[in-house]
Amino acid sequence: MTLPLKNDRLLRALLRQPVDVTPVWIMRQAGRYLPEYREVREKAGDFMTLCRTPELACEVTLQPLRRFRLDAAILFSDILTIPDAMGLGLYFADGEGPRFRNPVRTAADIGKLGVPDPEHELKYVMDAVRLIRKELNGGVPLIGFAGSPWTLATYMVEGCGGTEFACVKKLMFDEPATLHRLLDVLARSVTAYLNAQIAAGVQAVMVFDTWGGALTPRDYKEFSLRYMQQIVHGLTREADGRKLPVILFTKNGGQWLEGMAASGCDALGIDWTTDLKDARARVGNKVALQGNMDPAVLYASPERIRAEVGTILEGYGQGSGLVFNLGHGIHQHVDPDKVTVLVEAVHEQSRKYHS
Amino acid sequence: MTLPLKNDRLLRALLRQPVDVTPVWIMRQAGRYLPEYREVREKAGDFMTLCRTPELACEVTLQPLRRFRLDAAILFSDILTIPDAMGLGLYFADGEGPRFRNPVRTAADIGKLGVPDPEHELKYVMDAVRLIRKELNGGVPLIGFAGSPWTLATYMVEGCGGTEFACVKKLMFDEPATLHRLLDVLARSVTAYLNAQIAAGVQAVMVFDTWGGALTPRDYKEFSLRYMQQIVHGLTREADGRKLPVILFTKNGGQWLEGMAASGCDALGIDWTTDLKDARARVGNKVALQGNMDPAVLYASPERIRAEVGTILEGYGQGSGLVFNLGHGIHQHVDPDKVTVLVEAVHEQSRKYHS
Repeated sequence: MTLPLKNDRLLRALLRQPVDVTPVWIMRQAGRYLPEYREVREKAGDFMTLCRTPELACEVTLQPLRRFRLDAAILFSDILTIPDAMGLGLYFADGEGPRFRNPVRTAADIGKLGVPDPEHELKYVMDAVRLIRKELNGGVPLIGFAGSPWTLATYMVEGCGGTEFACVKKLMFDEPATLHRLLDVLARSVTAYLNAQIAAGVQAVMVFDTWGGALTPRDYKEFSLRYMQQIVHGLTREADGRKLPVILFTKNGGQWLEGMAASGCDALGIDWTTDLKDARARVGNKVALQGNMDPAVLYASPERIRAEVGTILEGYGQGSGLVFNLGHGIHQHVDPDKVTVLVEAVHEQSRKYHS
Repeated sequence: MTLPLKNDRLLRALLRQPVDVTPVWIMRQAGRYLPEYREVREKAGDFMTLCRTPELACEVTLQPLRRFRLDAAILFSDILTIPDAMGLGLYFADGEGPRFRNPVRTAADIGKLGVPDPEHELKYVMDAVRLIRKELNGGVPLIGFAGSPWTLATYMVEGCGGTEFACVKKLMFDEPATLHRLLDVLARSVTAYLNAQIAAGVQAVMVFDTWGGALTPRDYKEFSLRYMQQIVHGLTREADGRKLPVILFTKNGGQWLEGMAASGCDALGIDWTTDLKDARARVGNKVALQGNMDPAVLYASPERIRAEVGTILEGYGQGSGLVFNLGHGIHQHVDPDKVTVLVEAVHEQSRKYHS
């Protein structure tokens, strides 16, 4: 038997239903800017141990909720758990970001990849979801997530994060059918993974397309958006007797909002390079929006942070359909007290837009 | 007495005057992908010696023109020569990009900065321009360039290139007047520097705004575009008895083309995340366009490169006003023979759009 949510602002705003104030959460809210996170991280030894140990993943997921009056929790995990479960050997080189021991480069490599069973190879994620839901005790909703197929493919083919995408784009240009095979197995894997998260208890899901913005508009549609759409159509869209919202976020995707809004998702993540008022005008009543404060505003004074919150709320304007967030993950060197300022400012200043 | 240009396609296309075929040049065409460049670079010892020695800068500027039928030369130099001339102490840490020994962080630091005299502190650049013009012997035009004030300011305040811009954005949010003082001295310095390049012989100029795309639309207008506009209005717009074209390029600026086109410049650099047909429709007859092939296409087969050239030319459509280029600098690991394929394909396939 599921407890009714005490705070369901996030779910309501994502579905453009009335709310009392604008909900707020922060990408990477469980992360290195929090001393209590760094402490757990140090004890765990390495990042993947944190992800793979449900008690630790649960603990760091809940940490920011103890400090700030956030309207959502987001599962602590990594977008690369799927390729890791496929056998690519994820590891984190010190200060260098994620890497794979066994990148996939050829049709033969790709042909061998199967869809991981989420309750087997990725059971540690589902166990974390179940534990977090229990600990949240109906306070705020829990967001689940996955990387987009294109974003996962870039890491899997390059073997690391990159800026030039030499290998994956060579594959895209010279052997598009091979890349499509990889993207298809990834789309099926992400769908199964997110559906398992939903079954385990997440109440909204977000797909992170970190590298879609490195494509031409044509290639974005063919190699990234198409597979996110396939995922959207394959997801269980109900949980706890209510509609489960799906958020798509393509970093640097501000030029393509119309296409994303037509994918069947409920909300779009917006980074700070797009004006929120323009974004709302462009997507109309199709989807809610989530964003879009420049993460660097959190280096500024409390007064400046409050002013910026006001500008963004005013840009979106009257009515529901906005989830306040940063336009990208919070930076490591931000003072946590600035987050308090931000969260309080969103709740205080947004009331007048929901009368 | 100046020789008339044998090949003036570039200048004509930038001013939207009729041409026989679409001109083509490549950002970073003098660079590490060429073995003959790596040889000179190794002999010089370090990158700044190459920039500071006119004979070497001239030699590497001319190298790509010996291999490829390019329609322009671009001065070999670096966007950070101006802050270096201001006394910030530019150096290149191995594999880490440019850094400054003395970043500027405070109003006091910024108050001490003066406009460098281009024929004194930056005489090595002007000597290179004069030598290259002489060696080009009227073959193709020479493009001069500088970094945008915002882009220079990010390096000067951060002390290095970055992705988070913590220091420069903190300044922007908390002490905007101080940042405006820095941007103003930079705009005056860039104007003097480009005018000196023009006096020394460059026949077109380009302003590189590498980091403008990291701003919100509002901050882009106030802290980047405004100062590029100040530069455009301060430039000598005639050389050798003809109009001298000015190109503005904001990487990831695809959402802001209308504002850039209204700055008074003649052409906009376009990266590959914007569709060229859409870009042309948006800027109308205000400006020419330069771009916009994904640099990663040069990893693909010759057939695929030719097909992509065809798609871009068809996207732009009939008539003058396009300068073919990549959407960003050529990558280091590209095979130079692919550039031959590209250049030949542009000339061959574009003839039909200029009948």
